Amino acid sequence: MSKKFVYFFGGGAAEGDRSKKDLLGGKGAGLAEMTNAGLPVPPGFTISTEACLLYFQDEKNLPQGLQAQMDEALSRLEKLAGQALGSSERPLLLSVRSGAALSMPGMMDTVLNLGLNDVTVQALARWSGDERFAYDCYRRFVQTFGSVVLGVQKSSFEELLDDEKKRWGVRYDSELPAAALKELVDQFQQAVRKQAGLELPQDPQIQLGMARDAVFRSWNTPRAIKYRQMHEIPDTLGTAVNVQMMVFGNLGERSGSGVGFTRNPSTGQRLLYGEFLPNAQGEDVVAGVRTPLQFSELEKKWPDIYRQLSEIAEKLERHYRDVQDFEFTVQQGKLYILQTRTGKRTGVAAVKIAVDMVREGLVSQQEALGRVEPQQLVQFLHPIFDPSDRLEVIATGLPASPGAAVGRVVFTAGDAVQMSKKGEPVILVRNETSAEDIHGMEVARAILTARGGMTSHAAVVARGMGKCCVVGCDALKVDERNKVITVNGLEIREGDFLSVDGTAGRVIKGKAHTIAADPSSDEFADFMRMADAARALGVRANADIPRDAQTARRFGAEGIGLCRTEHMFFAEDRLPLVQRMILAASEAERRAALEQLLPLQRSDFFGLFQAMDGLPVTIRFLDPPLHEFLPKREELVVEIALAKERGQAGPELAEKEQVLRRVRELSEFNPMLGHRGCRLGITYPEISEMQARAIFQAACRFQKEGGHPHPEIMIPLVSLLAEFSEQKKLVERVGREVFEAERVSVPYHVGTMIEVPRAALIAGRIARVADFFSFGTNDLTQSTFGFSRDDSGPFIAEYLNRRLLARDPFVTLDEEGVGALVQMAVEKARKANPRIQLGICGEHGGDPQSVRFFHRVGLDYVSCSPFRVPVARLAAAQAALGESHYTTA
Amino acid sequence: MSKKFVYFFGGGAAEGDRSKKDLLGGKGAGLAEMTNAGLPVPPGFTISTEACLLYFQDEKNLPQGLQAQMDEALSRLEKLAGQALGSSERPLLLSVRSGAALSMPGMMDTVLNLGLNDVTVQALARWSGDERFAYDCYRRFVQTFGSVVLGVQKSSFEELLDDEKKRWGVRYDSELPAAALKELVDQFQQAVRKQAGLELPQDPQIQLGMARDAVFRSWNTPRAIKYRQMHEIPDTLGTAVNVQMMVFGNLGERSGSGVGFTRNPSTGQRLLYGEFLPNAQGEDVVAGVRTPLQFSELEKKWPDIYRQLSEIAEKLERHYRDVQDFEFTVQQGKLYILQTRTGKRTGVAAVKIAVDMVREGLVSQQEALGRVEPQQLVQFLHPIFDPSDRLEVIATGLPASPGAAVGRVVFTAGDAVQMSKKGEPVILVRNETSAEDIHGMEVARAILTARGGMTSHAAVVARGMGKCCVVGCDALKVDERNKVITVNGLEIREGDFLSVDGTAGRVIKGKAHTIAADPSSDEFADFMRMADAARALGVRANADIPRDAQTARRFGAEGIGLCRTEHMFFAEDRLPLVQRMILAASEAERRAALEQLLPLQRSDFFGLFQAMDGLPVTIRFLDPPLHEFLPKREELVVEIALAKERGQAGPELAEKEQVLRRVRELSEFNPMLGHRGCRLGITYPEISEMQARAIFQAACRFQKEGGHPHPEIMIPLVSLLAEFSEQKKLVERVGREVFEAERVSVPYHVGTMIEVPRAALIAGRIARVADFFSFGTNDLTQSTFGFSRDDSGPFIAEYLNRRLLARDPFVTLDEEGVGALVQMAVEKARKANPRIQLGICGEHGGDPQSVRFFHRVGLDYVSCSPFRVPVARLAAAQAALGESHYTTA
Repeated sequence: MSKKFVYFFGGGAAEGDRSKKDLLGGKGAGLAEMTNAGLPVPPGFTISTEACLLYFQDEKNLPQGLQAQMDEALSRLEKLAGQALGSSERPLLLSVRSGAALSMPGMMDTVLNLGLNDVTVQALARWSGDERFAYDCYRRFVQTFGSVVLGVQKSSFEELLDDEKKRWGVRYDSELPAAALKELVDQFQQAVRKQAGLELPQDPQIQLGMARDAVFRSWNTPRAIKYRQMHEIPDTLGTAVNVQMMVFGNLGERSGSGVGFTRNPSTGQRLLYGEFLPNAQGEDVVAGVRTPLQFSELEKKWPDIYRQLSEIAEKLERHYRDVQDFEFTVQQGKLYILQTRTGKRTGVAAVKIAVDMVREGLVSQQEALGRVEPQQLVQFLHPIFDPSDRLEVIATGLPASPGAAVGRVVFTAGDAVQMSKKGEPVILVRNETSAEDIHGMEVARAILTARGGMTSHAAVVARGMGKCCVVGCDALKVDERNKVITVNGLEIREGDFLSVDGTAGRVIKGKAHTIAADPSSDEFADFMRMADAARALGVRANADIPRDAQTARRFGAEGIGLCRTEHMFFAEDRLPLVQRMILAASEAERRAALEQLLPLQRSDFFGLFQAMDGLPVTIRFLDPPLHEFLPKREELVVEIALAKERGQAGPELAEKEQVLRRVRELSEFNPMLGHRGCRLGITYPEISEMQARAIFQAACRFQKEGGHPHPEIMIPLVSLLAEFSEQKKLVERVGREVFEAERVSVPYHVGTMIEVPRAALIAGRIARVADFFSFGTNDLTQSTFGFSRDDSGPFIAEYLNRRLLARDPFVTLDEEGVGALVQMAVEKARKANPRIQLGICGEHGGDPQSVRFFHRVGLDYVSCSPFRVPVARLAAAQAALGESHYTTA
Repeated sequence: MSKKFVYFFGGGAAEGDRSKKDLLGGKGAGLAEMTNAGLPVPPGFTISTEACLLYFQDEKNLPQGLQAQMDEALSRLEKLAGQALGSSERPLLLSVRSGAALSMPGMMDTVLNLGLNDVTVQALARWSGDERFAYDCYRRFVQTFGSVVLGVQKSSFEELLDDEKKRWGVRYDSELPAAALKELVDQFQQAVRKQAGLELPQDPQIQLGMARDAVFRSWNTPRAIKYRQMHEIPDTLGTAVNVQMMVFGNLGERSGSGVGFTRNPSTGQRLLYGEFLPNAQGEDVVAGVRTPLQFSELEKKWPDIYRQLSEIAEKLERHYRDVQDFEFTVQQGKLYILQTRTGKRTGVAAVKIAVDMVREGLVSQQEALGRVEPQQLVQFLHPIFDPSDRLEVIATGLPASPGAAVGRVVFTAGDAVQMSKKGEPVILVRNETSAEDIHGMEVARAILTARGGMTSHAAVVARGMGKCCVVGCDALKVDERNKVITVNGLEIREGDFLSVDGTAGRVIKGKAHTIAADPSSDEFADFMRMADAARALGVRANADIPRDAQTARRFGAEGIGLCRTEHMFFAEDRLPLVQRMILAASEAERRAALEQLLPLQRSDFFGLFQAMDGLPVTIRFLDPPLHEFLPKREELVVEIALAKERGQAGPELAEKEQVLRRVRELSEFNPMLGHRGCRLGITYPEISEMQARAIFQAACRFQKEGGHPHPEIMIPLVSLLAEFSEQKKLVERVGREVFEAERVSVPYHVGTMIEVPRAALIAGRIARVADFFSFGTNDLTQSTFGFSRDDSGPFIAEYLNRRLLARDPFVTLDEEGVGALVQMAVEKARKANPRIQLGICGEHGGDPQSVRFFHRVGLDYVSCSPFRVPVARLAAAQAALGESHYTTA
């Protein structure tokens, strides 16, 4: 007995199922599975991949027994269909398609309408009552069989078709009458004869054999081989061949095609949802030339079909245990399901469906958690543009911070403040932002920059604020001086309306319509509770001010993983003090300025402890280079030059010159690698002292009021053990002093950021004296790659386009390089100090794929922007459950 | 029998020797060794460190047997000296000194003239015939015994001394007459009585016992403990006590003191060399109050002493097998050798001595190689300031590039060119330099900057040029606009003379006198031949132009390890072309500019291949950010603002604005981490193409002329495997094209720099497709620490001062961090590709300590500035021989 090569499906049962994907290919296994699920799938059979491989092994001879099994399957199919291949009365028509175990879209061709010849075409015309339809099918069959099976150049057919249209004076194929199509069939057959040197076979059996062999051979075309190399698909898989009965939705008023969803993909509502187009093939529904009917209308028009579809939807969900998106055709009153797959859905729908299905007992909690992409949760937190609107997208940048915002364009922080005081919504547009723009960013609905990457100043600050932001939008030429944006010939001026889609990075002309978010839904709360129960990683938030801390806590943050104290320094009431501190000519003068900053910082920290009562608050000492706080050098130079030109003099000019001198002294070629981080605290210990004092005083006072502060003091940018030890000693001394003065004592931790490669390399030594590490993966990525966060946007974009990089390493952690350092540091740290607490506070803390990595290497927590906290909670849960991610069937 | 605690030395034999350093301390072992060598050392004995440790273990009781052994040694000493402790006729006087196994300079005190009391002082006066001398000795004894042994405050004695000088109306101690000193002895004894509550002991035996115990106790003073902690010296070493007969060189005309060198320490000439001061103690020679006699005069004055010294010099060299620097005293016609140590010498002398001693059969070649500090070899290549001159040093900076130069101060590159055209030597002084200053640096005798570290632009370029350079000279306030330097109140203006010592980092007022270097001496050549025979590491040079390549080859470079092609772009005839290329609005325009650069680059490379005929030439593709080639943004902004203010308009202004726009587009926050390195070659492949074409064309043409070019093309700043692969493919394609067109083919290599941590982390994968790696340790240090090369100078200086850092990591490779990455990469690379060639081309390639590391991790070669090549050759030889470094006895 020969091996089984042919697997039949139809009549409510199939010989294969989805477990036989290797043997039947993805498509074949899917058809078998659908048949087994009791769906009315057009019947047919699948020739296994094994047959394909044997065909190649035996010098393109058919394996023994294959032909006999095909004959048997074909006759079974004919019986079921009530039609026969080559019949001059009820001819059976077939589709022949390839289908490998792994998807290779568009790599191999398909032959439709196989079985037509000069005789059966007439039978088809009679049966369908539509001669034009029949000859169009035949014309198409000759065309594809000729090119795919017989190797005739496609262009030959196209030219003949064009000539024919000219002759008939029509523009579209569909306008050609039956006579023209008949003529074309003749011409096509002549072309085959001429180019292939043989007749197009009239015998449908021979057609079928040749089509099968052509599909086999398509596995080894140069194009297919190249594709497999690129995608690392083994050559030894082979392809299956699917032979299936043709059905037609365009056979008159009792026919039609449509697509359906078992639940509403926008809202998640449990109600059959879909569209339907009478007397049309599936492709017509997709093409959108005619407006399809909604299912509510289908129900009225064809109640029986609608009832069948409802039953099928039930069946589909029970079988596939998820929402299905299916295609169907009605051929002269008979319903066929052509395809089904997991239905794509919005985030809001995904959560509702997951929670509902757990309630319905359809899926377990674990499965339900795997059904939502973490990223989708942001839809609960930010508005989106109405997906059904047609939007005029004028440019696309990096989606730096999600949301949808509409407002009037302004070009400076000052203008933003002024215009928003008038009650106008504003969009702040700049080439790039800096610390000086913060007050403008605060009042803007969205921030849009022409430059910068996902961790540029604009992006980081906007995410912290939960504010819509698009950065690195190269196509925009932003002329800040003349207050105009030029983009592809279009000019947008101050005051013009613009819409910004921070979720997708789109910039939209005019006012688009937004849909509000609803983070207070029950489903959302239920879903997040399930996630929290499943995860091992802690989730904290990066928050600099009490308001953000409150938001973060509302979104489920279990503490603050990073408070950037410098952000407090930019507030309007602080900046002059900070500038005085920096411009100080002596330590005494600097101490005087710090003295005034102390109470302000203390109240900042008090607010944070309050917002995070009972939870840890990690406070990082001053980190950025000092010149960030000073006026811009270029502006000063121009002001001074102009003042001199105008003959102005006096103390004001002298002071400006004094400031310029200091700005020049402080300015650096590469500030990211310059005098910042703990290097500041070491060269100006009085700054660290003030900050430590403010933290301890705030903690003591909050504790005296009955609160539970948990300060964790974090030393930034450590590259030497001695840097950390020195700052730690300073903190401990100030702690003792404050506790004595306040007559209470508060437990606290001192740790460091691991954000330069050297810190990771010597992590074992630092771990012996540190209470915690927090991986600063933004800076660590920056220094490990040598990619500036602020400047690498353009070339990273090009690298991504050209696939030199698979992912932006500032968005998803580079496991091979940066990850290797993190893992090395974790191992060294745990070995040196088993009680050490390990976290991460870079932007990667909110990226699901990176969260999986952090879970795998055994961190204790991740910390991210408040608005990413739900994302991180779900990603952490999925990581713990070993879910790779949301899987499409 | 009790343990042996006391070791006698004297009379031509000693009980110890230099192997007993742990037991006898460094000083005790040295005295024993000298005695054994047959030198006339004043006799005495050493009490072992063991005795000290037992003393502490047993609650400060003397170990059993110690006193008896001391008594015995003392009587032996008295016999040898013909004097007796406490004798009223020939009193023996003793010095009592501490001496641990590891040097702790100045940590413990010394008691001199022990044995004096109210009786013996008179005997000393009689015997010496100098009452003033005797009472001065006694006064000093009471003073040191009182403070060191009895704990009287030093200031008490100082005050009494001051009062006495006032009373006598004299200024110096030496002016006090015998009567005054007698008076002081009384007053000092009263002070002891009052403060210590006891009499200064008159019994010399008691004095000796108390002094011994005081030395023991000095081991555990807080100051000594602190010192040991800082220097990681174990507390368990203990100190020895050295008791030795006092000798005096100031006992009249038949006495004197001097220092001698067994060979001339400046020239290395084999001739006894030294100075001598009649009727003086050793400290008088050092103090330089009286002018000492040269040995030539000593020979005439005291031929017998001179003959003895000559014999001793012979003996010393035979015994110690190196040049010795010895101190001697003649006491009333009798010669004593007090101390001998390895003689410090200039680099020129060191080489001559090493070569001579090999010829004399005194040392092996290996030993000889260990006798020269690699750093000393630069004295053969650069002039130095005359060490015997007194120089007015006004500031000290980092010694960025060795040499000595004198010239007139200028503040801009343009002024440098102009003034040097007038035939004036110039010193270019700037806050920092940039690429635009190159033409000024070329004509300057020296470059001096107020900012920047050892790898700043000025430092790297100057070293490449072999030009004297001092950088990071913080004390200078350089006002480039007003053309004045202010330093500690002193003003130096344009045109003033300044001398710059690049070897020591000194800035000297006015014109100092220089001594020329002589790299062509036979000894130098012989010495370098020995070094080359011993080393395993190859040594190449970093050279960008044929002239530097020729210099490098003359200094022994075995190829070019790094040619920075961008340096060719700054030449006057190229810069406009380069600017046109950068400002190009389209690829076509850019290609046109590149087309014009091609022949220029080709001739550059041709010259390099010629200079390095038969040796490898590693050429790096364009590396720096493009905006370095453009006008400075700040200057443009000011020019435009002023032009507008003045109402100027027209095409010139428009063009300036156009340039400014492009400069703004290209300018980056952190250019070091920005669009540079291979990122340029990938986004503008036409640049890499032009460079590859120029290299291959030059190689083909040189080969056709009979030359042997060995191009090695190096892709800079790779962090991703794909970056390297893509550029390599481009190079290979251009290679094929050129070889076909030129009808010859040249063997070549393609490799990459490893200069960001990620490249080191994925070195295994890159190694599979690369022919070579060159570690760019400047950039690697920068990114591993997160220290900007240009900006970190000030805080690194502070870190070094405060000992947070032991060494500047840009000078000596940080083995713990950066070294760990290098080692990791080497291991991965060798494993993945055993044939890969591994080198290093950072500044560390010329640093001896780093070279040892590179030898240890198994690199194939180092590459450094041409003027460091001899240093690297010797360092490599020492590394191979396992010599740690030049060792001082």
